Amino acid sequence: MTSLTYRRQMVIEWGHCDPAGIVFNSRFFEFFDSNTWFLLESGLGVKADEIKNKLGIIFPLVGAQATFHRPAKFNDPIEVSSRVSEFRRSSFTVEHKITVGGELAVEGSETRVWAAQKADDPDKIAAVPIPAEVIAKFS
Amino acid sequence: MTSLTYRRQMVIEWGHCDPAGIVFNSRFFEFFDSNTWFLLESGLGVKADEIKNKLGIIFPLVGAQATFHRPAKFNDPIEVSSRVSEFRRSSFTVEHKITVGGELAVEGSETRVWAAQKADDPDKIAAVPIPAEVIAKFS
Amino acid sequence: MTSLTYRRQMVIEWGHCDPAGIVFNSRFFEFFDSNTWFLLESGLGVKADEIKNKLGIIFPLVGAQATFHRPAKFNDPIEVSSRVSEFRRSSFTVEHKITVGGELAVEGSETRVWAAQKADDPDKIAAVPIPAEVIAKFS
Amino acid sequence: MTSLTYRRQMVIEWGHCDPAGIVFNSRFFEFFDSNTWFLLESGLGVKADEIKNKLGIIFPLVGAQATFHRPAKFNDPIEVSSRVSEFRRSSFTVEHKITVGGELAVEGSETRVWAAQKADDPDKIAAVPIPAEVIAKFS
Repeated sequence: MTSLTYRRQMVIEWGHCDPAGIVFNSRFFEFFDSNTWFLLESGLGVKADEIKNKLGIIFPLVGAQATFHRPAKFNDPIEVSSRVSEFRRSSFTVEHKITVGGELAVEGSETRVWAAQKADDPDKIAAVPIPAEVIAKFS
Repeated sequence: MTSLTYRRQMVIEWGHCDPAGIVFNSRFFEFFDSNTWFLLESGLGVKADEIKNKLGIIFPLVGAQATFHRPAKFNDPIEVSSRVSEFRRSSFTVEHKITVGGELAVEGSETRVWAAQKADDPDKIAAVPIPAEVIAKFS
Repeated sequence: MTSLTYRRQMVIEWGHCDPAGIVFNSRFFEFFDSNTWFLLESGLGVKADEIKNKLGIIFPLVGAQATFHRPAKFNDPIEVSSRVSEFRRSSFTVEHKITVGGELAVEGSETRVWAAQKADDPDKIAAVPIPAEVIAKFS
Repeated sequence: MTSLTYRRQMVIEWGHCDPAGIVFNSRFFEFFDSNTWFLLESGLGVKADEIKNKLGIIFPLVGAQATFHRPAKFNDPIEVSSRVSEFRRSSFTVEHKITVGGELAVEGSETRVWAAQKADDPDKIAAVPIPAEVIAKFS
């Protein structure tokens, strides 16, 4: 079974890089977060900024990790490809891979909860089961 | 007449700097914004995160500018000093100066509106006159 | 006389925005910096990461400013268009305009020096005259 | 055996936060990186910006991860505490904990290589053994 994969082509910008001339690590986590939004927009078929209002769902991040295999430098063309690697009852994992010139440079993942506002207290949120039809859209 | 001045001592971090080994310009605008919040908290005597709820006021930024006289490098100790240089009817200017080792490195300013939610439409905001007692607190 | 203009289409990402739900101001200065690099690459016909080595030139920023007319929000499509609005003997001004849905949202500019390493001390840089053939490429 | 621990008190700034009103995840990785520099400066007894020149050593990041237990919001006082949790032959792990109002909010770690420039090619770096006297300084 293949997963829906979102691929984004970017160029490394001057402001992404640190005094060693390579991408500062926190930027990769920005790239991950953005790609997750693009992936969800694509899979759910709802504009990213309307997911909360239309579906009543948010996706708080509870974990993130990355392994840095090789650096990316200023003006390098990169591709960030992302897919949901696992759906659990009310959480899911997004797997991210970044290539530089076709070579794997960074591997990472995010663990996110599928959550909704509580009916009795809209200021609070609670994890809810991920519907089967949602899961089907990412397969 | 002297103005209330907020002074913040910081150290330049690795992630603030670009491949030239100096602070990337957008970081200075982050420092400005934070110092404006610290200055307002100090002058208004209300915690920064409570200003909106307690005073019903927000301060949208309508202009920002900086002149870069000398660079700041990784691990440089800096001081960011900020004061309201001018109050107008419903807007004000915050002047920022950054020194590196006592030498002036960056001068900048922000122009902000003094705004409140509209009574007939809480999703909209409108500029309102700055009360004289607020102005007095920053003198 | 028209100027070479570089236009970049982007989408506002979640991490660009602040608790007011709009782009945090420092991000616009990141967008400006990146667009200046893209514009110079395009005008000079040299890859951005090779300008320093091939042309012996760097472009330190000595001033930046922006006026914020209307906010940009999460997932808004924007266009950042940039051109050199003035060349002086050894400095130049890049003018940036950002539209959201075709409406002007941000106007800004950067003042940059045209500089080279000093022959007698490669750790130092000095402003040098901008060649006429460079200026011609941006007209 | 206790480890040398570096503790940094900070306040969450407006620009650290996203439209949900909480710290955007990439900022925590910035905080981790800065704390690692502060910890190394403290343990090695060498100013952070002089470590490369004085000791001939750099510390490339090969992995980073974080678990987010509870959010941090604008103006929250936080403490970031960091220590080397493990030294291996030529790599080490820095463990980071962030508390908000005394409550554990984020746990993370970085895996870094202890590396030096290659004698026969200063453009390349290679992992080298971590000296016992260095390890002793962090115990």
